[in-house]
Amino acid sequence: MFTQNLEGCQLEEKLSPKIEMLERFRKAYGAGELAPLSLVEQREDIIAFQKVIEPFLKFEDVLILGTGGSSLGGQALYALSAQEKPHLHFLDNIDPHTFEKLFMDLNPKTTGLVVISKSGLTVETLMQLLTCMQRGLMEEVLVITEPQENPLRKLAKSQNWPCLDHPPDVGGRYACFSVVGMIPALLGGIDVFAFRKGAAEVLRSHLENSEPTALLGAQVGLFLKNKRGKSLSVLMPYSDQLHFFALWYCQLWAESLGKNGKGTTPVAALGTVDQHSQLQLYLDGPKDKFFTLIAPQWAGKGDRITSTLIPEFVHKTMGDLFSAELRATYETLIRNQCPVRLMGIDEVNEKSLGALMMHFMIETILTSYLEDLNAFDQPAVEEGKRLAREYLAL
Amino acid sequence: MFTQNLEGCQLEEKLSPKIEMLERFRKAYGAGELAPLSLVEQREDIIAFQKVIEPFLKFEDVLILGTGGSSLGGQALYALSAQEKPHLHFLDNIDPHTFEKLFMDLNPKTTGLVVISKSGLTVETLMQLLTCMQRGLMEEVLVITEPQENPLRKLAKSQNWPCLDHPPDVGGRYACFSVVGMIPALLGGIDVFAFRKGAAEVLRSHLENSEPTALLGAQVGLFLKNKRGKSLSVLMPYSDQLHFFALWYCQLWAESLGKNGKGTTPVAALGTVDQHSQLQLYLDGPKDKFFTLIAPQWAGKGDRITSTLIPEFVHKTMGDLFSAELRATYETLIRNQCPVRLMGIDEVNEKSLGALMMHFMIETILTSYLEDLNAFDQPAVEEGKRLAREYLAL
Repeated sequence: MFTQNLEGCQLEEKLSPKIEMLERFRKAYGAGELAPLSLVEQREDIIAFQKVIEPFLKFEDVLILGTGGSSLGGQALYALSAQEKPHLHFLDNIDPHTFEKLFMDLNPKTTGLVVISKSGLTVETLMQLLTCMQRGLMEEVLVITEPQENPLRKLAKSQNWPCLDHPPDVGGRYACFSVVGMIPALLGGIDVFAFRKGAAEVLRSHLENSEPTALLGAQVGLFLKNKRGKSLSVLMPYSDQLHFFALWYCQLWAESLGKNGKGTTPVAALGTVDQHSQLQLYLDGPKDKFFTLIAPQWAGKGDRITSTLIPEFVHKTMGDLFSAELRATYETLIRNQCPVRLMGIDEVNEKSLGALMMHFMIETILTSYLEDLNAFDQPAVEEGKRLAREYLAL
Repeated sequence: MFTQNLEGCQLEEKLSPKIEMLERFRKAYGAGELAPLSLVEQREDIIAFQKVIEPFLKFEDVLILGTGGSSLGGQALYALSAQEKPHLHFLDNIDPHTFEKLFMDLNPKTTGLVVISKSGLTVETLMQLLTCMQRGLMEEVLVITEPQENPLRKLAKSQNWPCLDHPPDVGGRYACFSVVGMIPALLGGIDVFAFRKGAAEVLRSHLENSEPTALLGAQVGLFLKNKRGKSLSVLMPYSDQLHFFALWYCQLWAESLGKNGKGTTPVAALGTVDQHSQLQLYLDGPKDKFFTLIAPQWAGKGDRITSTLIPEFVHKTMGDLFSAELRATYETLIRNQCPVRLMGIDEVNEKSLGALMMHFMIETILTSYLEDLNAFDQPAVEEGKRLAREYLAL
């Protein structure tokens, strides 16, 4: 379903897999401590979610209010959507201009609202919600939050809105396989069974095989950081649809591992776009980056050019060019001593997206083991949240 | 029009301005060597451009084909657009899926095409164009390319399409004030006179004042890189509309300065979104970043909350919260020893965008002087381009 090629990582010799980390992972999984992952084996919850979203399917538009982990997984999934309506709008910011523009376009009678905040305390989401309510956007509202008293749940109760439980043992950035990812995905007509199936296959390979992809990936990344000074991790899919997946990865990686002075800085790039924006820096700037290219099989896809106006394009497709550019960038990075990992997928679809997201979740967790970090907290941002509340009160 | 506050940069003492670099800049400008900048004093070209785009104004959609410098400046400008139609689509990639989806939605009879490639050789743009032609999207086509024989110009001639000259002495990433930025901006109903006016004021301050913003910015950035190991430059506007501006900056900075092992890696962030995605890493991960926050005056903007459902929000607006979050992030970065520059603007509009873009263009050029680099070439990417053509021929 996907392949990981580490030949371009310039390790000289293969790293021996740290089996003890894999065993720790398996033990934690077996003890039920990795709830975000075990979700992928479920099916019944989906049936229930399908029922919950039914009233929304008649709408022209659905707004998804939420930020960070409450938004990015859903956006990564929705990027695969081919349906016309309802059209989903992910509102993950509090720019008054964005909302003003949005309100001009929406009909409150044909717009639904899904509000997601694990803690139920996220000030951005609460402010979005109150603003939408004042504009009459409350025809149908669904709330997702933890099963405990919090401002969002209280508000939902006062308005008689249905409320789904955000699993307490699943942090936002690991929530893509839970209700948090599933509701937007189902609203967008995404095949969530295939998504979970792709993820489940990758999970199983990490429970069963001795050299699974994420273990090797985690070790290579740390080796390159610690021994070769590669302090940035550039994720560069050659697919417009994987752009939000790359942003999802950036949150997952940054928040899980950026602590105690450790962690590498994730950078989302996009092929071929960033060949015309960042590649000069990548090749000839500071050699501080580790690259991961995501390579779907593009050859032959798209319209075959019949015109002879540009002779070299005759009988070629856009996909052929995409493929050639990808291969050229890969080779050029290697020739310029830039370590690069190549992750191949057949095509961009639910199954491969699920596989990639599971791979990177496990790679993040294994890296946290190797770095002796807690991959599931984010202690440093609490001070800023407190300050923001303080300034708002002024 | 905009302010630059360097107090959070933690320099201990003020750096003395390197006046000789400013003089070199002024001499180059006076000798006509900085053509991208002097464009902002012109007005007559706009009148001509307005005439050229007239046939496009009747359309529902206009596709802008181009990549990198042929796209990002226009996208930064179009992000300010408030008009309904024509709706602009910037196509800067060659993902067959994106095009297939696009073709499903477009009516060839009500769609115009603007094709931008300085060299006229950009394979992505040529492939996009041929594919669009085969789909019958050639009701009205406008080409922007250098005034010399090249595949794109030949193609335009063979089809009798109007062709505007891309100024040969203006590189793509510096082209936002030229025809390359102006045509999409005019199509999007942007006030290009205000845009150039904002830029012209900043330019003039660099020709006249002894401590202009870009000189101080360039010196601070280099000091932090060389003396404090800050190898990443994070640009974080608190405005959805400035997202593409941040991507434009990333190209400008990366391609101009990422050479000979020098340069810092630009990262586009977005407030408040990335407070929920990257801030944990920024505050407690490796201390390798220099931050620039772009701060519009948001207080009081947006609907005033009247509901008492969440007591702390009563009488507050979304803009008040945006402001409080910005201030909190700024303070938190400082408390965590992260050097941060604060750039204040009144509001996000054409004038302030022009000012910011001019500031960063001059900051880039002055940094190139200080680093002894050529800010206008991009030698390292040529090999990849050659390889891509080679692989395409296979």
